[in-house]
Amino acid sequence: MHALSPGKPTVPTLTSILSAHLDGSRSIPETIAACYARLREHGDDAIFISLKPEAEALAEALRLQDEGPRGRSLWGVPVAVKDNIDVAGLPTTAACPAFAYEPKRDASAVARLRAAGAIIIGKTNLDQFATGLNGTRSPYGVPRNALRPDLVPGGSSSGSASAVAAGIVPVALGTDTAGSGRVPAGLQNLVGLKPSLGLVPSAGVVPACRTLDCISVFALTVEDAWLALEAMAGLDAEDPFSRTLPLGRLGAAPPHLRIGVPRPADRDFDGDAGAARSFEVAVECARTLGAEIVPLDMTPLYEVARLLYDGPWVAERWLAIRELLERDPEAILPVTRQIIAGKPLPSAADAFSARYHLAELALAANAALKGLDALMVPTAPRAVTLAEMAADPIGANSMLGRYTNFVNLLDLCALALPVTLASDGLAAGITLIAPAGRDAALASIGRALHAASGLPLGATGSPQPALTSRPVTAPVGMIEVAVVGAHLSGMPLNGELTGLGGVFLRSTATTAAYRLFALPGGPPARPGLLRVHEGDGAPIALEVWALSPEGFGKLVAGIPSPLGIATLALADGTRVKGFIVEAAAVAEARDVTHYGGWRAFCASLKSSAA
Amino acid sequence: MHALSPGKPTVPTLTSILSAHLDGSRSIPETIAACYARLREHGDDAIFISLKPEAEALAEALRLQDEGPRGRSLWGVPVAVKDNIDVAGLPTTAACPAFAYEPKRDASAVARLRAAGAIIIGKTNLDQFATGLNGTRSPYGVPRNALRPDLVPGGSSSGSASAVAAGIVPVALGTDTAGSGRVPAGLQNLVGLKPSLGLVPSAGVVPACRTLDCISVFALTVEDAWLALEAMAGLDAEDPFSRTLPLGRLGAAPPHLRIGVPRPADRDFDGDAGAARSFEVAVECARTLGAEIVPLDMTPLYEVARLLYDGPWVAERWLAIRELLERDPEAILPVTRQIIAGKPLPSAADAFSARYHLAELALAANAALKGLDALMVPTAPRAVTLAEMAADPIGANSMLGRYTNFVNLLDLCALALPVTLASDGLAAGITLIAPAGRDAALASIGRALHAASGLPLGATGSPQPALTSRPVTAPVGMIEVAVVGAHLSGMPLNGELTGLGGVFLRSTATTAAYRLFALPGGPPARPGLLRVHEGDGAPIALEVWALSPEGFGKLVAGIPSPLGIATLALADGTRVKGFIVEAAAVAEARDVTHYGGWRAFCASLKSSAA
Repeated sequence: MHALSPGKPTVPTLTSILSAHLDGSRSIPETIAACYARLREHGDDAIFISLKPEAEALAEALRLQDEGPRGRSLWGVPVAVKDNIDVAGLPTTAACPAFAYEPKRDASAVARLRAAGAIIIGKTNLDQFATGLNGTRSPYGVPRNALRPDLVPGGSSSGSASAVAAGIVPVALGTDTAGSGRVPAGLQNLVGLKPSLGLVPSAGVVPACRTLDCISVFALTVEDAWLALEAMAGLDAEDPFSRTLPLGRLGAAPPHLRIGVPRPADRDFDGDAGAARSFEVAVECARTLGAEIVPLDMTPLYEVARLLYDGPWVAERWLAIRELLERDPEAILPVTRQIIAGKPLPSAADAFSARYHLAELALAANAALKGLDALMVPTAPRAVTLAEMAADPIGANSMLGRYTNFVNLLDLCALALPVTLASDGLAAGITLIAPAGRDAALASIGRALHAASGLPLGATGSPQPALTSRPVTAPVGMIEVAVVGAHLSGMPLNGELTGLGGVFLRSTATTAAYRLFALPGGPPARPGLLRVHEGDGAPIALEVWALSPEGFGKLVAGIPSPLGIATLALADGTRVKGFIVEAAAVAEARDVTHYGGWRAFCASLKSSAA
Repeated sequence: MHALSPGKPTVPTLTSILSAHLDGSRSIPETIAACYARLREHGDDAIFISLKPEAEALAEALRLQDEGPRGRSLWGVPVAVKDNIDVAGLPTTAACPAFAYEPKRDASAVARLRAAGAIIIGKTNLDQFATGLNGTRSPYGVPRNALRPDLVPGGSSSGSASAVAAGIVPVALGTDTAGSGRVPAGLQNLVGLKPSLGLVPSAGVVPACRTLDCISVFALTVEDAWLALEAMAGLDAEDPFSRTLPLGRLGAAPPHLRIGVPRPADRDFDGDAGAARSFEVAVECARTLGAEIVPLDMTPLYEVARLLYDGPWVAERWLAIRELLERDPEAILPVTRQIIAGKPLPSAADAFSARYHLAELALAANAALKGLDALMVPTAPRAVTLAEMAADPIGANSMLGRYTNFVNLLDLCALALPVTLASDGLAAGITLIAPAGRDAALASIGRALHAASGLPLGATGSPQPALTSRPVTAPVGMIEVAVVGAHLSGMPLNGELTGLGGVFLRSTATTAAYRLFALPGGPPARPGLLRVHEGDGAPIALEVWALSPEGFGKLVAGIPSPLGIATLALADGTRVKGFIVEAAAVAEARDVTHYGGWRAFCASLKSSAA
């Protein structure tokens, strides 16, 4: 029944579809026809609320084929869009027929996808008004969990997740306020990328909680989700909640990761031993990537999560559907109505009190996250069956949000991805979490973790494609900088790089024309790299990171004397900007060149101290 | 009656008091004794709600004198603190006896002032709970407007303003939510510095609207206000609304200013022709500093101002005194009670609606401010008499907030300063406004404007001290870079700087710890600056330019080997990023240090070629 049968001929990823279009092995109309054929074959009428007629999609495909790629990153890629995001030509319902309207224009993010060559094939089902994490709260039916039909699909972005898991489209848009872009990914063996708030414009989205909403991406691989994000990210003059944030660049995971995980007392699998074991698998997987695992006190984060549902933010949901609540309350599902309008509305004083409380908790949460590359949590405590959900529609839903509710309130970005998949199709996923602006860093870590899991894609049975070789040098517009000391990953100042949107590119060394000195002063202790004549030095280990010009400018502006930036010649034949020391300052410094690098020198200090 | 009599012997500024302490021409106990003598002489019992006994202050003075300066920037300087800010040892009343409590510790900002050597002499009167802009709403009486006793002193920070204007203390702390740190400055010929929200910690302040409150500074000069700000600014782990913001440096006004002013249709002087003329004087004064004047559509800013008083923020004031409102409402002044609890409290939906509306307006406001160094507005439309205020306690108060109400809601910083002073003591001031983080840029412009006004200080009759020489420094958020060769103005690569938005700041030289080399290669011919040991080099002429982080990043990324960027020590005492050369590269280069700079060396080549 479920689609884990091996041996499908094509890998249904965005990346593979795009390369097939580019190398001519498949035409865009062929891709679109296959997409609709797969949709019919899958036979789940609850996934789409409205579908573009196949003939229309094929006409778009033909036009795109005729135009040629023109450098478009999603040329001819079919995409599904959650039905609380406007797509011109299709109604927006938010899963409430009485709320439906015909948008005159695309949401900003959808317009950007189209400009990148995507073909929107339809609008997907959701928990009504994006209120829910389970996917059963819709008058349009319950999209089938493509892996295990007895389980809920996850919500609120249920249809988008099922469409990707079933291999109908390679990517689909969701939205995420309290986990709607992550929980369905966790339940259907998918990647769910929840960007930093304001990175992707929300103009043209039916608000749930407008101060917390964002558009999210479901995909079969991290790489695919990232390509969709790249097409949508950037400031939008029409969205007042849009912000300038570093997008960064997907790369290889840095070699020395620090990953926080809930300390044992703060783990909650709702009694499911299998889910607990799956999380252990994920932790082990992170360790095999060289990550240091840091147990974390989750108290402030869980307290933030409680604030969300006990707090004033429900007033935002009420504002979004106020007119309908007054005009035709019966048109709203009873469970949705109960959540949004079942209790007396909070006061402005409640709203400000909660804001103060949140600010206090954010202090503690940020302190807990400091120095970590990511926090790793289960995406949900465990999977939930349709029967369980029917028996406890509120309680089971709340349980699903255990590890997701606090993220947007704390202005964090997140990436849900698969870690284990039982032979019966029971998926378990983890979510990586970091402060806003670290989307690229999460994706780079997540891509490596997903590859290490070796799992097939969604419910398609297809194996993961081999990781494409990401450019290890910075793309045009970004600047490569070589760090040799306290900015190395795992070292005290590495957070300066990641905080400026820096992305790790590669570990290498200088040519043999450099000497390394341990400078007096600190903490942190810092080395100085001095260029000497070829043959008078030795290769010195370093890391190359990529920064935006602005981030690079800020980094350089903060470098204290006697350090500076010059052009380094590297062993891999490249020449990049990198840290150097002024020659006048090394007279009193200890020459540590023979250690071959700062990390080795620091290790020698530790071992001699031990 | 008022204190404009000329010829007072000492200039009562913080800067002059500090130098007298440092050069021993006056002891700290003498300063404190003079402060209390001036207080008695002024004879206004409504300024202070509680005063430190003189003997106690003198004991502190003796202790500080014995300790010596220890580099403290406010060593022995008497300071007054608004009575909604905690000072250990004195009660906090917020001008409501029934609300009073004995704080166990100083507010964070007060603790920082003390750590910098300040002596807190007492707590000043205010509009009760900082609710008001006029200074008459207090059971502790109305502090006298030190310039014109028939006028209101301005509020809510009335006592702090009167204490500084009367020459009792050189600086005093106020708070500012909707103009309380600016309006009293405008009415009493003072500088009122309202920092960016979160730059100075608010821990230990009785909240008015906690999301909008900040501590402000009253002073006789911009320089004094800046020194107090420098002592208080910086992240505070105890204040969740504290933020990391660039403090920047007070300098000379940048050479190419663009100053926005309300377009004629948006100017409001409440019918006062004299106030209108005063603003024209200010505009002319800005023009004489070389500023380009840009008329601005104030609509979005005024709409934000309306949001403040019609909007949900009153719920924050209600939260701050909720307990007292329930326990003993009669203990609150009727006008204050009417404002805070006279209307039904808004709902959380109102609060979120207003937040959305504010976000939309902020888009328009930020677009209007873009490209300006500052917006310049009158501090208040006109001065108000005590009689007028008594006749219309709400209306006249609202009028005073015309140009102040929108500032904190839009996350802007502001600096109020005097521009004209009639012979009868009627003051008119302007306020400079810019986005958060530009405090130093505003202060640098305001310092020049205030000096150009030639006005005496507050109500003291003392003339302004001569401006101390400050280097022209980069606008906040921009990075200073010293160029020594082909990037100098008039040289072949200068266009790279201007093309990146670079702004010329000043011509100066290095310290005598550098040598200059003419490098092989080119064109263009380029020099290399090498740091050597003090005494082995000579001062090398250079220019300092300002660049945005992005522009700086691009400049550095494009610097070819063997050149780089490090920190240069300059003859004017500053340290800036600047071009250097790697020592390994100068072996084959010609030492041209004795020319004193690249321009002189190039000139010598031309003359020898001619």
